[in-house]
Amino acid sequence: MYTEHPPDTEYMRLALNEAARGMGRTSPNPPVGCVIVRDGQVVGRGFHPRAGEPHAEVFALREAGEYARGATAYVTLEPCSHFGRTPPCADALVAAGVSQVVIAALDPNPRVGGQGASRLREAGIEVIVGVAEEEALRQQAGFRSLVMRARPWVIYKYAMTLDGKVAALDASGRGEANGLVTGLASRARVMAWRNEVDGIAVGSGTVITDDPLLTTRGVEGGRDPRPVVFDGQGRTSASARVIRPGAVVVTAPGMDMSRHEAAGAQVIYATQPSEALAELGRLNFSTLFVEGGPTLAGSLLDAGLVDEVRAFVAPKLLGAGLNPLTAPVRPMHEAQVLRDVTFESLGPDLLIRGLLNDIPRLNVQGAN
Amino acid sequence: MYTEHPPDTEYMRLALNEAARGMGRTSPNPPVGCVIVRDGQVVGRGFHPRAGEPHAEVFALREAGEYARGATAYVTLEPCSHFGRTPPCADALVAAGVSQVVIAALDPNPRVGGQGASRLREAGIEVIVGVAEEEALRQQAGFRSLVMRARPWVIYKYAMTLDGKVAALDASGRGEANGLVTGLASRARVMAWRNEVDGIAVGSGTVITDDPLLTTRGVEGGRDPRPVVFDGQGRTSASARVIRPGAVVVTAPGMDMSRHEAAGAQVIYATQPSEALAELGRLNFSTLFVEGGPTLAGSLLDAGLVDEVRAFVAPKLLGAGLNPLTAPVRPMHEAQVLRDVTFESLGPDLLIRGLLNDIPRLNVQGAN
Repeated sequence: MYTEHPPDTEYMRLALNEAARGMGRTSPNPPVGCVIVRDGQVVGRGFHPRAGEPHAEVFALREAGEYARGATAYVTLEPCSHFGRTPPCADALVAAGVSQVVIAALDPNPRVGGQGASRLREAGIEVIVGVAEEEALRQQAGFRSLVMRARPWVIYKYAMTLDGKVAALDASGRGEANGLVTGLASRARVMAWRNEVDGIAVGSGTVITDDPLLTTRGVEGGRDPRPVVFDGQGRTSASARVIRPGAVVVTAPGMDMSRHEAAGAQVIYATQPSEALAELGRLNFSTLFVEGGPTLAGSLLDAGLVDEVRAFVAPKLLGAGLNPLTAPVRPMHEAQVLRDVTFESLGPDLLIRGLLNDIPRLNVQGAN
Repeated sequence: MYTEHPPDTEYMRLALNEAARGMGRTSPNPPVGCVIVRDGQVVGRGFHPRAGEPHAEVFALREAGEYARGATAYVTLEPCSHFGRTPPCADALVAAGVSQVVIAALDPNPRVGGQGASRLREAGIEVIVGVAEEEALRQQAGFRSLVMRARPWVIYKYAMTLDGKVAALDASGRGEANGLVTGLASRARVMAWRNEVDGIAVGSGTVITDDPLLTTRGVEGGRDPRPVVFDGQGRTSASARVIRPGAVVVTAPGMDMSRHEAAGAQVIYATQPSEALAELGRLNFSTLFVEGGPTLAGSLLDAGLVDEVRAFVAPKLLGAGLNPLTAPVRPMHEAQVLRDVTFESLGPDLLIRGLLNDIPRLNVQGAN
């Protein structure tokens, strides 16, 4: 799209930046951003702050006021056409008199999918779909996963040395005392991500060994994701730091986790990772950020449930240590290959990102 | 230097490209290239093809002929000032009447170090030292290691998945049948490197499991490095494909490797990796390319003998497999950190390079 509509892409990026401000706060709704442009000037901006509050278009139209007439609205997701907790945004755009609506991606919600765009077209508004679509899909992966697969989008994040070690085996100290894998910039990035996701998943081993807080630190206006502890055998202590109000403990049917519940955690029961994700979907987790350890990550990977990978590689060699993944033996040609891979330099480290599953999208015939 | 002398750097790169043509063929001499430039025109080029044959300057001066008078000579290494198997190149440059000599790096050889530059200056030639020096040092790392440390420059090369696995544990097939870690571009790069090094080191486990050829394939004009098999316990078969004329077997004192010798291999005895490298230095190995496996690489790393790392990372997850390194347990803060790290995208893979030891250089007072 860039060569044909450079300004469209630029304005849509502004709208995506707006949307990003709501990430991690809107579930089960998507993060959405809107920018209204008239004669090359941005006259309105808005984003959806949280479920139950107005949609992005409403804030942007409010700011634009009369300038919305004849303007172009850039929206990261197809405007809704149904009455939910708020009136349809498509109607609001029509009423405001915008002459063109540029949409990054269609809504996967069966109640909307293509109908928002149709309603706009019926009102004589020119509609363009698919500008900066890939970026929008990435931003909406959690929402799309929740709507179309009824489970969160699972992101496996880890940091390893150049010989593939996520931690030392040496028990002389953990964390700072033992030495960290990555540098400052990488750790800051992890905090920024924690601010954007609904839940952070860890296995019981990580809780027992590290007793992590899993909070968002050093991010202005940041909020903490909900800890999700996978503890099928009830090995964790109810006094672990992550066992607190808002936390979820995933365990096997029949386990007595009443002390964890007394500490404020919500307990869900599952025998398979896929069941656990379905349960988390019911609790409106749209994104799950898996931070370790190897057993949890390996069981999710093996079940095909890791959707996205974000791996930091620190240019150092340790020689002996903990592996990122523990999974059954397979030949090399059965390795799971990442798609849409990107590399990024972060201080001394390298960040490698890619997808293992497609971001769910809805293909609506004739919508574009 | 670039901002002050952009043409100098460009011409020196041409000289480095010339030098590269001799890499892996000149030991114990360095690869050296020379370009002679007059009035912005390259009038002569040359490189040192192998020990015993003329030096780079001689070929370049021969091609330049009378055009050398008043010209600038770009040499990747300080011209020699002593009579070895060939007369001093410094004298040849003086006799040809060049008015300026640009040198990438001084010679670490105690018989030359700074004296070549001095002789040129005494003859009234302007001498500039240090243009594209880092690139030259990298190219000459093997020669410098041999001269100053009496052992080869050790490069550890490996290819792993994004979860740090260099091979599957699945025994259903090796190599192509099991699936390869990296893509075509990465494998081609390895072949180009094999063409540039004196020796390829592998451990006995790799020979027993993979029976590799370790030859240079698909490189025009390529030649094979000498296989160096580390086999302290005499586990390899004398009929392994690498046991052939030109091969070296490193074993423990007292081992009977007469069948390997009968197959054409040279046997050296060492109890420590450092002793083995010293022995290989005596055999004029200036560069040793360690291709595996984990035990050999780990023992070299642990002894501080890995000088350079070239790691391919393939964006795929395997879950279970062979680690790149087997070394004693240490805390994370004792990991060996790479310096001068570079990243390069190669097909689907990423190549990460860096140094663990400094390239030996000679600091000569007042030489520049």
